[in-house]
Amino acid sequence: MIRNISILGSTGSIGTQTLEILARDPEARVIALAALKNTDKMEEQINAFHPSVVCIYDEESAAVLRNRLSNSLQDKAPRVLSGMEGLIACACAPEAELVVAAVVGMIGIRPVMEAIRAHKDIALANKETLVCAGHLIMPLAAAEGVRIIPVDSEHSAIYQCLLGESHGDVEKLLLTASGGPFRDYSPEQLKDVRPADALKHPNWSMGAKITIDSSTMVNKALEVMEASWLFDMPVSDIQVIIQPQSVIHSMVQFRDGCVKAQLGVPSMAVPIAYAIYGPKRMPFVSEDRLDFAALKKLDFLEPDRALFRGFTLGLEAAEEAGTMPTVFNAANEEAVAAFLREKIGYTDIPGGIEAAMRQHHTAEHPELEDILAAEAWARAFIRERYAL
Amino acid sequence: MIRNISILGSTGSIGTQTLEILARDPEARVIALAALKNTDKMEEQINAFHPSVVCIYDEESAAVLRNRLSNSLQDKAPRVLSGMEGLIACACAPEAELVVAAVVGMIGIRPVMEAIRAHKDIALANKETLVCAGHLIMPLAAAEGVRIIPVDSEHSAIYQCLLGESHGDVEKLLLTASGGPFRDYSPEQLKDVRPADALKHPNWSMGAKITIDSSTMVNKALEVMEASWLFDMPVSDIQVIIQPQSVIHSMVQFRDGCVKAQLGVPSMAVPIAYAIYGPKRMPFVSEDRLDFAALKKLDFLEPDRALFRGFTLGLEAAEEAGTMPTVFNAANEEAVAAFLREKIGYTDIPGGIEAAMRQHHTAEHPELEDILAAEAWARAFIRERYAL
Repeated sequence: MIRNISILGSTGSIGTQTLEILARDPEARVIALAALKNTDKMEEQINAFHPSVVCIYDEESAAVLRNRLSNSLQDKAPRVLSGMEGLIACACAPEAELVVAAVVGMIGIRPVMEAIRAHKDIALANKETLVCAGHLIMPLAAAEGVRIIPVDSEHSAIYQCLLGESHGDVEKLLLTASGGPFRDYSPEQLKDVRPADALKHPNWSMGAKITIDSSTMVNKALEVMEASWLFDMPVSDIQVIIQPQSVIHSMVQFRDGCVKAQLGVPSMAVPIAYAIYGPKRMPFVSEDRLDFAALKKLDFLEPDRALFRGFTLGLEAAEEAGTMPTVFNAANEEAVAAFLREKIGYTDIPGGIEAAMRQHHTAEHPELEDILAAEAWARAFIRERYAL
Repeated sequence: MIRNISILGSTGSIGTQTLEILARDPEARVIALAALKNTDKMEEQINAFHPSVVCIYDEESAAVLRNRLSNSLQDKAPRVLSGMEGLIACACAPEAELVVAAVVGMIGIRPVMEAIRAHKDIALANKETLVCAGHLIMPLAAAEGVRIIPVDSEHSAIYQCLLGESHGDVEKLLLTASGGPFRDYSPEQLKDVRPADALKHPNWSMGAKITIDSSTMVNKALEVMEASWLFDMPVSDIQVIIQPQSVIHSMVQFRDGCVKAQLGVPSMAVPIAYAIYGPKRMPFVSEDRLDFAALKKLDFLEPDRALFRGFTLGLEAAEEAGTMPTVFNAANEEAVAAFLREKIGYTDIPGGIEAAMRQHHTAEHPELEDILAAEAWARAFIRERYAL
């Protein structure tokens, strides 16, 4: 079983939850930790988990931490690196068997590619890796014989349902969605949505950005793209179904008509632990249990394509492939940030995405530079369009 | 993959559906067929599937068939055997890899034991084999390295959910039940139930006996007993939950809090095919697919222990073990038969079972003879009690 782990993005939500799990496992060893710039939290993590190398991406913060550690830990301090070089060093740390890739944004892609080349299994929580570069990542992982294990609860559910099954027997993936707080709105009502309305998401405590993405179902389109790469299924064989209680985390339909579902109390700890230990299930992961009698019912509805315009655009981007998913994702990020600052309206989010997609000329088999260029273009396009 | 199959109980519902599946598989070979006394259907099956040996349990009917075949097929006719000896010969036919054990009643136990000794995998649809003799069957199968594969849709669901999982990671089995037509009745209302009321079961077209057992949930108590043996789980770790749409066929809860469920359109073909081909899923098994949006919701409720008195008694019998499950099952069969003939009332079914159980002195590790004696005693007890 895998026990030697590096974490990229250790001070974020996935990173800290990963460390909480590893803290309960006396045999786990944390090899490397990387973060953007949170030196205080990184110092705590170093003192608790004793990694042999760490990276603070921000050069100045790295210097601060280096200085602090040389006073407190002296020659027991880990190497403190910085920048992309440091991130890659953490991703490729020799003793690590598995890399938890939980860095946010495009900077997460290269370290994952290098980790794959260094034959590390990847517990993948960085969205851009597959959304933007799935066509580079998956063939590379196959060539190197490396597993890409999902950390997202939906993809983990599918991954769990596929255990022991044959790819050729899979007919369809059923990706569940909460549908967010506006699933019963009319398209007219959406125009008046303010950030505060969207941030009351019922099932899960999430960041503002992901909460908005959940309300527009843009996140679900991104998950369709990821599922398509992870499980080698065409976008047309991935159906999204709204399951408002968020108890069914996703399902797989097989060619004999059977459906397997994975269910549970919403939790990030469970899929993180499964990515590390699966198919073994550890007793220390979660004490929460579903109570079906208390739950009473599970509802299902089809997503309204007109209401969830951003979702529909995302499926188009997925079908188009090449650089289009990158443009979709980057345009969405810029637009959501502007919406959260109340610079644009809620329906300008899909509006901006659509305008960017219509303007973009898709490159079909983009290299990493082309992807980064498409991202920059889409961000600039949104900023210019809304004078941000 | 298994392709050489014997079917015990070939003219019944499971048997004919098994043959329908095998008819679509050009590589399948039917080695042996056994039935109680339906010579016409057996003759059809012989002409369609060319088994090398058949058994008609009833001696006179066997003679009729033997005579008919020697005229029609002449020296291409299969051997036609009869009685327990014939049944065992079909169960142990040398070329067969898998025996579908779909004979009804206690006579199904011995052929299964002999098939296990002959190293045949067993697709088990005979209830008595595990309910009455699980303590003999499961150790024998383990010693002979033979798989006991469930055919019942609930147990097949659990079997499918356990694919690739470790027994030590299983925390609980969640066996679903339709709850039958009376799940919203008061105990008072039950007293007036007539056979015609119970025979309007909504989700499934079943025989009269099993329909009554489904309405009393006695069938679910029997399934708990079978699940306990099949999956080596204590009765206390098997929870029954009512899921009236009968879409979730059953679930498994693991010790990390995850639940896996198997779902589908109610069908016997799917679990039968899985018992034969699993974990491979064949495309010709079923064209029915779940439509979650059309389904709209799944309901869950706890079984009412007072309302489903027969169910509660069954769980007691399961905990008691030994000969008690046999007494429970036999008393139920006699009482249900009497109810269907309108000789006793609906609530006399659990009433009769309870009286039999209170009178019975459990033998703790019964041999097959002790089990057969307990069965005969319980049937006689019910007949005497109600002057049948």
